This record gives sequence, C-alpha cells and structure tokens, in this order.
Amino acid sequence: MSLHGKSYIAGAPSLPSPLTFLAVDPQTGAALEPAFYECSEREVEAALAAAEASAPTFRQSTPEMRSFFLEAIATEILALGDALLSRAHAETGLPLDRLTGERGRTVGQLRLFAEVVREGSWCDARIDTALPERTPVPRPDLRSVLVPVGPVVVFGASNFPLAFSVAGGDTVSALAVGCPVVVKGHPAHPGTSELVAGAVNRAVLAAGLPAGVFSFLQGSTHALGKALVQHPKTRAVGFTGSQRGGRALLDAAGARLEPIPVFAEMSSLNPVFILPGALLERGAQIAEGLKNSLTMGVGQFCTKPGLTFAIGGESLEVFREALAKAIHGAAPGTMLHTGISGAFAAAVAAAEVFPGVHRLACGEREADAALPQGRPVILSVGSEAFASQPQLREEIFGPAGLLVEAKNLEDLRHLAEGLDGQLTATIHGTEADLAEARELVAILERKAGRVLFNGFPTGVEVCPSMQHGGPYPATSDSRFTSVGTAALRRWVRPVCYQNFPVPVLPQELRNDNPLGLMRLVNGKLGRESF
Amino acid sequence: MSLHGKSYIAGAPSLPSPLTFLAVDPQTGAALEPAFYECSEREVEAALAAAEASAPTFRQSTPEMRSFFLEAIATEILALGDALLSRAHAETGLPLDRLTGERGRTVGQLRLFAEVVREGSWCDARIDTALPERTPVPRPDLRSVLVPVGPVVVFGASNFPLAFSVAGGDTVSALAVGCPVVVKGHPAHPGTSELVAGAVNRAVLAAGLPAGVFSFLQGSTHALGKALVQHPKTRAVGFTGSQRGGRALLDAAGARLEPIPVFAEMSSLNPVFILPGALLERGAQIAEGLKNSLTMGVGQFCTKPGLTFAIGGESLEVFREALAKAIHGAAPGTMLHTGISGAFAAAVAAAEVFPGVHRLACGEREADAALPQGRPVILSVGSEAFASQPQLREEIFGPAGLLVEAKNLEDLRHLAEGLDGQLTATIHGTEADLAEARELVAILERKAGRVLFNGFPTGVEVCPSMQHGGPYPATSDSRFTSVGTAALRRWVRPVCYQNFPVPVLPQELRNDNPLGLMRLVNGKLGRESF
Repeated sequence: MSLHGKSYIAGAPSLPSPLTFLAVDPQTGAALEPAFYECSEREVEAALAAAEASAPTFRQSTPEMRSFFLEAIATEILALGDALLSRAHAETGLPLDRLTGERGRTVGQLRLFAEVVREGSWCDARIDTALPERTPVPRPDLRSVLVPVGPVVVFGASNFPLAFSVAGGDTVSALAVGCPVVVKGHPAHPGTSELVAGAVNRAVLAAGLPAGVFSFLQGSTHALGKALVQHPKTRAVGFTGSQRGGRALLDAAGARLEPIPVFAEMSSLNPVFILPGALLERGAQIAEGLKNSLTMGVGQFCTKPGLTFAIGGESLEVFREALAKAIHGAAPGTMLHTGISGAFAAAVAAAEVFPGVHRLACGEREADAALPQGRPVILSVGSEAFASQPQLREEIFGPAGLLVEAKNLEDLRHLAEGLDGQLTATIHGTEADLAEARELVAILERKAGRVLFNGFPTGVEVCPSMQHGGPYPATSDSRFTSVGTAALRRWVRPVCYQNFPVPVLPQELRNDNPLGLMRLVNGKLGRESF
Repeated sequence: MSLHGKSYIAGAPSLPSPLTFLAVDPQTGAALEPAFYECSEREVEAALAAAEASAPTFRQSTPEMRSFFLEAIATEILALGDALLSRAHAETGLPLDRLTGERGRTVGQLRLFAEVVREGSWCDARIDTALPERTPVPRPDLRSVLVPVGPVVVFGASNFPLAFSVAGGDTVSALAVGCPVVVKGHPAHPGTSELVAGAVNRAVLAAGLPAGVFSFLQGSTHALGKALVQHPKTRAVGFTGSQRGGRALLDAAGARLEPIPVFAEMSSLNPVFILPGALLERGAQIAEGLKNSLTMGVGQFCTKPGLTFAIGGESLEVFREALAKAIHGAAPGTMLHTGISGAFAAAVAAAEVFPGVHRLACGEREADAALPQGRPVILSVGSEAFASQPQLREEIFGPAGLLVEAKNLEDLRHLAEGLDGQLTATIHGTEADLAEARELVAILERKAGRVLFNGFPTGVEVCPSMQHGGPYPATSDSRFTSVGTAALRRWVRPVCYQNFPVPVLPQELRNDNPLGLMRLVNGKLGRESF
C-alpha cells in the first residue's frame, strides 16, 4: 500500500508543500519513507470551508445514512488489512497484537455508534403540546431535539494510533451526530493516519455524503493546532494529549471572540487506594496486578495507575516487597518516540531527587540508550513528603509509579482530598474495608470521572455507561466523556420549535414518531405516537 | 415586613459594612429605605466555604428531600404575600399585575423542578452489566449517573426580579440536582432579593438541609462579581444580563487556572421574518402583534423582537403604516433604572443617525425626562445599509425595533446568514410561504436556540422542551438552556462506578431500581429492575 504523504481536503489529496517531516521507527531509530507534507494555511482554510459548506446537508442526513457511513468506515479500515497494522507497528513500536486489538476496538466503536444512531433516542426529543385553553396564558406547541453544532476539529493522539486518532472516538462520535470533522493527524504516525484517512474518504463516497464532511491534515507544528482552534468556522474541538498541549489549545480558544467548547483529555495519575483488609488478604496479588497495569503499553495509557496509597505496617512491607520484585522483573519497552522517552527519563530522574523519595525498584534490564525505551520504575515516599511537594502530583507518562505510605485511614482521606482531578480512582478493599471507607469513596467521586473497586484503571470499555473525563486537569470539561456512546453529547445543541407545522418539523419530533424514539412527551418518557 | 440590608451567609445575616447602597424607585426617582451593605471579601469567602462544606451532604440528600425543599421555597415565597410584590414594584417599576404573574412563574418553576427531581430519570442512569466470559477481555460491571458539580454562583438579573433572580431558574435548577448556591443579588432590587433570600433560608431549615446550601450576597461592584467567578471553590456560574457583563465574567473565568463553565445569557435581537403570503394576508395583524411584543415590559425582555425583515412592495407599505400607527399609539413606560433608560435613549439616538436609517414612528407621548422612561420607537432601513453596518446588529435593550426591507427571498436568506447567534428567530408565513422558505428555516435553526412559526418570541414557557440559549453572543454556551427543566443539565457531571458492590452504589444504579427510573441498561431504555 503506497503512501503519498499529502493531506486530504474534502477527499482530494492536497498539493505538495516545501516543508516536510518524516516518521521514525522507535524500534530502530530509522526514518521511514515517504516524507509527509506540512499542510498550508490555505489547506486549513479549504478544509474548514468544505466542512462548513457540507454541514447543512450532513445535518439533514438520515440516521440510516449516518449508520451506513460509520459501518462503511469500519469495513474500509478492516480492508486495509495487515498493511495498516505493519505501518502502525513501524511508526509507534506498539506490538502487532496490541494493534490488532486496538483495530478491533476502533471498528467495534464505529459499529456501536452506528447502532446508537440507528436506534436514535440519543437526540433527546422533547415535546410539549399546545394548551390553548390554559389561563392566564395559553401554552404554545413546543418541541426540541439535539442538532449537530457544525465543524469539529479533532487532534489525533500519539498513544492510540487507531482508537484515538483519525477515525477514533472523537471523530466517530462527531460524525455520528452529523458534524463534519477536520482531523489533524499526530505527526508521530503520519502513514497510519494517511491510510485511515483514505478509508474514511472511501466511506464518504460509499455513503453518498458530501466530500467536505471529512478532511485530514498532516502537520507537526503548534501553529497549525492554534490556527485550527481559532478558525472562525470551527465549532468544537476534541484533543487527547499532554496537559501543556491541552492547556495551550484551551487558551487559544479562550482568545477567540466567540467561545467554543474544547474537550481536552490531558493528564491523570489514576490513584489506587489499597485498604488494610485487602492489603492483608491479597497484597501480593494486588502488587502483581498493579505492575501489569503500570507497565501495560509501556505505561503509555492515560489511565495508568501512577499513584498508589496504602497504610504503613507489616502488610505494606509484604506488598512493597512483592511490588519491588514484580517491577524488577519487568523488561524495558519501546516507547512511542524519543520525545516521550526523553521526557519520561527526565521526569523519573527529577522525582527521585525530591526529599523523602526513594527508588523502591526498577526493571532489572537497562533501557537501550540509543533507542526510545522506557525502564519500569516504582518510587516510594511518605505521606508528609508527598503532601508537601506538589510536583509529585504531576503525571509521569511512562512505566513509573509512586507508592505513598499513609499513617492511617484519616491520613489516607487527607491525601485523597489533596489530589487534583483524575480520570479514574481505584479502591482495593474487602467489604469490611469499604464499610469503614464510605467517606473516602465520597471524596474520590468528587475527584474522578470513574471510580473502580478491586480492579485496575487501564482498559477503558467503550459502552453507554463509560465516563472517560474527570475534573481538571484530567480533562477540560468533566461534564463530558471522550469514550463511550455518551461522547456524542459533546457535539450537539438543542433547537426548540414553537408552533411549527408538522410537515416542516424534523422527523424526530413528528406526532406519529416515525423513528420509534424514546421521547419526553408532556413530561412522560415513552415511545408512543399521538 | 422589615428589611435589614444585610447579606445572608449560610442562613445568618452578615455584619454591617462601611459601604452601602440604596434602591431607587424608578417611578418617582426617590431613594428607598433601608441602606444595603456591600458584602465583604470575608463574606464571599465564608459563603463559598459554607457551600463547599455542605456539598457532600447535599449531594447525598434524597430526591424526596430536595423536592420538599423546592416546594418549601415556593410556599415561603407565597407566604411573603403582598409585601414582596409591593417592594418589587417600588424597586423595579414593573406593574403589580406583571409581578404577580412573575411570582406565579417562579413558584410554578419551583414546583415543576420538584416534580422532575421526584420522578428522577433526569440523572441519566446507565448500566452495563459484567460480561465475564467475553473474549478477548471480559467486560467489567459499569454504571454511571449524573452527580452535582458543587457550589454554583448565580447572578440575579435586573429584568426579572423574581423569576431570574434569587430563587429564579438558575438557582432552582442548581438546587434541584444538589448543588449549593451562592447568589449575588442584582443591586437594582436589593429589598426584593433580601425578602426572597429569607424565604429560601426558611425552606433550608424546614427541609433539614445544611445551612451552607444557600447564601445570598448584596453588592453593586464588578469586583464582587469577578471575585465570585474566580473563587477556587466556585464550580459553575449562571448569569443573565448584558453582553458586556457576560463577557467580563467569561474572561474572568478564562483567567482561572481551572476552567469552569459560565452560562451567560447575554443579548439577542430575536429576528422576525415576515414572508410575502403572510404579509399580504395579515400584515396589519402582525404589525399589532409585533408592537405588543416589542413594547411588552417596556421592551425589557431578552426575547424582545428587535429586528423585523420583510420584502419590499405594496404589502410592506400597508404593514409599515399599520406598525407606525401602532407604535405611535404606544405610551412611554417606566424602565428598570436610569442606567437602562439612559443606555436605551443613547442607543436609539445613535442608531437613528446611521446612513439609511429613518425613524418610522415613535410613541406620541414623550418620555418624562426626569424619570427613567422609555418611549417606543420603530426605525427602518434598507437591506444594503443594514448589511454594511454591523452596529445595527447590536441589541437595544428597551422598546425599540428596526424594520429591514429586503429585495427578495434570496436577499432575506442572505440577511439571515449575516446574523449573529440569537435566542430566538421567528417566521411569519403561510403554508405556501414555508414551502418556499425551507432554506431560511435551515439557516435560522443554525442561528437560534428556538425557532417560532406565526408567533412572537416574548413569553418563554418553563417546560421540558424549552431551549433558552443560542449561539454566541446570545449565550456563552448554546448546548444548554437557562429556562425549562433541561436547565439542570448545566450543573451535573457523570460518575462511572466500575465493579462496585451493590450496597455502596447510589440508589439510582441498584439492580432493583428502587426509584423506578428510566435507565439505559445494556443499551436498552426501560424502567425494569433486574
């Protein structure tokens, strides 16, 4: 499968430009062919103009058309076959198994959204029929439904080259509701992105949609990101990446005349609290699970458990030893690129010299200094030293964890209170532990979007109840999720129709309920027509 | 009923402060007793600390408790009797009839939210049960529910001293979901606000809730508003007022380290499009309706129709004459305060001297120059002069309207395209008109939160389907409404529970569905237990 290195503007490959960049194989350090062209300002303009022009038609598309479209994207991605996986493997260093799984997740996600669109009740149809006789004033006929906000800009993430990239969760949830999407691919996997963008283009054609509903831009500069966020035609933004990157986009959006929502998923330490009963009963087992979660994907998951809290004592010593042994046996792994591995090594080195911080263990085998490898490490600190050094509450992206020793349950609660917003928080406990720790649960519900019991936070299910979004700085808006079907809520707004003649009303709001939706009619939820 | 002039911090009257302000009766220009104390920084601190401290308890309150609380507020407001109405009349100049109606709306709104809370399905409970046998990885048990975001700051509006003030839509929707509220009252009606705040305090006691769930601050400075928005304990903000005021709060929030949602309802011209068939059939009747909508409440509604578009020709001349006659017969009215009446007079004078703008008619009787009165006026302009002068697209708060003469239907569409975001947009047309104007409808759906057919935008029903929020600058976030039951969506975020033992789960998520909620269980909506 040959790559041309160009962006796609409304389905058409862009012109070559003088500036290019290359992908690098993190497993060998070798540059990969071909060169990719940095997209120009003119292409940004063209992509957003095409997106805006296509928005009215896309908005009017039937649920069936959009479902077909999403399923066609899934089919086209699968049709790319091994070429997609091997290019992604070369560009990211992620194992083929993992990439096969991630492709399955990406395709499954497309099909799940297709189902949600086909069922249709996501549009929150609400009808209040006229009460002409009401006093002192009659009630008009009022009906509301969610409609797409317009062009959405999506930034591909480096750590999920398929599931959070060109046809990932942000893109799919926006297309599902009828928002045109302009994707800025992540420059670490431009070839993977080009292949997937081609697949989306073919699906656009197959579905008979206007070409402007999807554009894909290659680029590696901050200026490009800023231009996309500040473009007056951009109506919303989805981003997964670093806190610095997310904050820069938020600030860029804040400088717009007209505010738009920016959904940035940025950073999380995903604290794990091990309560005394669980520590005693199965400390060694939890240590093994923690090591697995911590080193999975070389620690490059946004839900990696970076902080673990437990109360000091004999059981903690047993746990500590088991964890040290497990980490000691964990091999270094190839990280996504040298930027990430360099930042990881620097962050670990910086953390280790903080007063009170000790290295509990690191992987036996050293990382290959010539390659972007990450060596697993677990650090340890007491609760006072932890509480007094806020830098220890910053995410280290990679296979590193910090074990914090608390004095007692009250200290544990106090530590929980001191945490910033998180994507997830986890409690390991027995039923007896939990009975004593209700207050801790209540604190963690305030701190995180997802609270887990006796599990590990890595592994984010794509389903209706998933909440992948927590208080700042985990995400920029904890009221929304970037994973799961509720993610489409980010790209819609309600429109209310007053006294509209039925033939002009959207199908979702007609008396006969032709789509069979669950609707709120005069305050009652049901699928009735009337 | 005597007034003490103090703020209420968690139910307790604050201390007197050296700075005070007075309310003024706009009907006479006379200052009203007593003096009101500007709240201090310490009181801001105390109010938000109490709000935060009460949040965990309030969050855990049962739906029944919160319904009782909202109904108790309604009861207590009614128990204030005529004293409330006469103070509001003195402070705002609004007629007693109107204030009686507004009290009815405020009380009705409280009771409607009480019903919604009691029914409970607003919390969007979602359950995906475990699939332990699934390959390649099992699915954990996942359940999500909306929870309150925490302390909400509400700014009272000047133009609705009851329905958008201390116990208005923002406050009620926030209390409904369990968010503590700190209200900054509008300084134009401090006595009315104090009375209502006292009523809320009594309801807090009656419901057995912690006193911190409600505080009320008196103040007249921008600094106070900014301090409230920037306070780290504030989790969200509700505001209804001017575009300048709203934008200042948005910018203040943008300067926070941690972003929070600010729901500002700011300005809208509520364009009315009269299509040829309707103009011919019932131009005079539309003119009369337009005059009524335009002058209702002395033009001080956020949905006042400030712009009217119609195509030139004989029917328009008939309409123009009828409108001129109607406006000529409309009396000047007392506006809320001299700030508003001064700004109104200045804005009208400025608009009149724009090239191409003529005064079509104004009220026969002059306004009393010594009092804050507004004299109805209707201006007229051609489409080219309108399109080329963006200042004509700025809201004039008061009984003024601008009639824009278009050349043809295409010109009308072009004018619609040029509009900023609006709360409402209205079409007057026959069925035949509408058949030809589908594209205009599609444009207006993009420009406004509510689209009306053959009606007038004033009169905003409080019901599930109401959307009172449109694209910027109508509101800061068109995805939400400040009127109607969907308003509670502004103050919640989802929390997902993974593998939680059932006894620890919130009631909304238990297998037996003890609250009988409509829930999304394994992708299917229903009220079943399992």
